[in-house]
Amino acid sequence: MVNGKQIFQGRLLNLFLKRQKFPNGYIGTLEIIKHPGAVLIVPFLSDDKIILIKQYRPVINAYIWELPAGTLNKGEDPLKCARRELIEEIGYDAGILEKIGYIYSAPGYTTEKIIIYKAKKLIKVKAKKEVDEVITPKVFTRKAIQKLINSGKIVDAKTICAIKLVIK
Amino acid sequence: MVNGKQIFQGRLLNLFLKRQKFPNGYIGTLEIIKHPGAVLIVPFLSDDKIILIKQYRPVINAYIWELPAGTLNKGEDPLKCARRELIEEIGYDAGILEKIGYIYSAPGYTTEKIIIYKAKKLIKVKAKKEVDEVITPKVFTRKAIQKLINSGKIVDAKTICAIKLVIK
Repeated sequence: MVNGKQIFQGRLLNLFLKRQKFPNGYIGTLEIIKHPGAVLIVPFLSDDKIILIKQYRPVINAYIWELPAGTLNKGEDPLKCARRELIEEIGYDAGILEKIGYIYSAPGYTTEKIIIYKAKKLIKVKAKKEVDEVITPKVFTRKAIQKLINSGKIVDAKTICAIKLVIK
Repeated sequence: MVNGKQIFQGRLLNLFLKRQKFPNGYIGTLEIIKHPGAVLIVPFLSDDKIILIKQYRPVINAYIWELPAGTLNKGEDPLKCARRELIEEIGYDAGILEKIGYIYSAPGYTTEKIIIYKAKKLIKVKAKKEVDEVITPKVFTRKAIQKLINSGKIVDAKTICAIKLVIK
């Protein structure tokens, strides 16, 4: 999908420079993060109870409220990734995973597309935390989450989008 | 804010590698996009009419619906940036710009923080389009925008967040 000159290939990020002609004829050099894609899950413990996680984000040096999410491994099926991330981050498997939609995180410079799932019929399993993840799950009602968003206490874009898409 | 080893310095993107100790004691190397920050504006033409833009996004090779937004110039005041972007992208200046909140685009790998403004008392001026922007503004009612989001026709994360925050 992204051609051009590769500048950096990291564990997560792939940086490319690409000369491109725009629909208006302008030719410019784009700085592009080629991202493998990601999933986000809205886990419903019951009809009114959703599990959020408080996660340490070293990039912004803050603990923030988010929904469980994660990056696709190479060639990984998004649905499998969603189950894996649920188990890793909150210690639940899901009986039902329903695709709700997708979003682009920052289409000005990253190809990252996040597929959003609703998880129901949760089954408690042992969490398999990654060493580089510092996560605490907590259960909230729909109303409590709306309040967190409206009062500016949820600042993670993908989480706000998913709540908007799942709780109409 | 971000130290570490600089890998790339582009026109927009700054890529750093940083060794960091996590709160759980783990030491890892982070791949960080150091971003200057951005603004997004929800322009109200009247109480029920909001201006969206259809923008070509070469990174994902698609035309998508978004709210006007833009990256801060070096040292630029976010409020000034918001006015500048409104004029550039839709050809309106704003009599009132009210800060609504902020979001992080992708806190796993970019420091990008987007400040969200509500713009009212719009005044028609001549649009000053950037050469690398392919933009068509269009007016929508609140209801029409909600419908676009619910039907998956708006996929830009910051735009969905801003609508969630501004239209309760």
